[in-house]
Amino acid sequence: MSVSEALKQRRSIKNFDPAHKMSDNEFQHLMEHAILSPSAFNLQHWRIVRVTDAEQRQAIRTAAYDQPQMTDASEVLVLCMDLKTWAKEPAQYWNHTGPEVTDFMVQSITGYYQENSQAQRDEGMRSCSILSMALMLMAQEMGYYSCPMDGFDFAKVGEIINMPNDHEICLILTIGKPLTDPHPKGGQLKIEDVVLKDRF
Amino acid sequence: MSVSEALKQRRSIKNFDPAHKMSDNEFQHLMEHAILSPSAFNLQHWRIVRVTDAEQRQAIRTAAYDQPQMTDASEVLVLCMDLKTWAKEPAQYWNHTGPEVTDFMVQSITGYYQENSQAQRDEGMRSCSILSMALMLMAQEMGYYSCPMDGFDFAKVGEIINMPNDHEICLILTIGKPLTDPHPKGGQLKIEDVVLKDRF
Repeated sequence: MSVSEALKQRRSIKNFDPAHKMSDNEFQHLMEHAILSPSAFNLQHWRIVRVTDAEQRQAIRTAAYDQPQMTDASEVLVLCMDLKTWAKEPAQYWNHTGPEVTDFMVQSITGYYQENSQAQRDEGMRSCSILSMALMLMAQEMGYYSCPMDGFDFAKVGEIINMPNDHEICLILTIGKPLTDPHPKGGQLKIEDVVLKDRF
Repeated sequence: MSVSEALKQRRSIKNFDPAHKMSDNEFQHLMEHAILSPSAFNLQHWRIVRVTDAEQRQAIRTAAYDQPQMTDASEVLVLCMDLKTWAKEPAQYWNHTGPEVTDFMVQSITGYYQENSQAQRDEGMRSCSILSMALMLMAQEMGYYSCPMDGFDFAKVGEIINMPNDHEICLILTIGKPLTDPHPKGGQLKIEDVVLKDRF
């Protein structure tokens, strides 16, 4: 499916078929493309908790105001960011360059993130959100629909998945087969409402 | 071009052909697909400054440590978020539903963002980053390459584009025709390094 077609077809789905499972081959195909997404300094801040256990699913559903996607979707992916990738052997992300470039990149990485917790968090939000769009469009190509969700108690879901203190959750992406057609799309801003020339 | 092929081909490009211009028809095609991206509560937080003026381009390049993409790319798009969309007539984003749903959504929107500046910022980062990936993959389908950038003085670029106080910049997306092949990709984490089952 073309990119443009996937963008046109994609809609956020509330009612997924709880009987449908994604095969391991499909999941592998989905992930191996999605993780080609860009990230600043190639730090790949994303850590993805694939929730399959029924009790875990129900606990997350409870923390998400009982939204049914959390139990009924074929895949429930908690997209987390590691806020400290920049401090954890950053040279590993630049092992394909010569040592001079590696040294320069490690210095740049440290300078960008050190003592700037907002920059660390913003970066994780960017990386995981970009990854989420790769996942949504790949899902569409594979005959699935998705729903990106941030209507849940973030701290509670963090506890449920035993998330380390130096991580944060970006969003939960649910993927599956729709049971009903999506609602008609509305309230769309026009291009001229959101694109400005040169300055505000 | 298929989504999977676009993900495989996409690479961040440093050297763009400064002689190439994107046509207005191409820009329209790019944008009309990209703005179909999802956003929480359909708030479409993105505001996109398309920088074409040569002096503006040079000023941004200076604020970006002289990175050549800022003057040489066919398109330089400063992806900004309006932090206060939730407070600016949010009913307009739910004009396609009945009045009961509209009222419920406006209440939910206010409850989610009010008095939570971190939630406002996180949401803008999510929306703009998701949009950026739609733009990158559409660009790929249209025969372009891109480079998402956050290596610049955010405050300085905000001044240059005269950004309102209730907006923030997410990133700058440059799009154009590459002059050189991208460097070999390296330092890629494996799926098993970034996907966890059920919990950390």
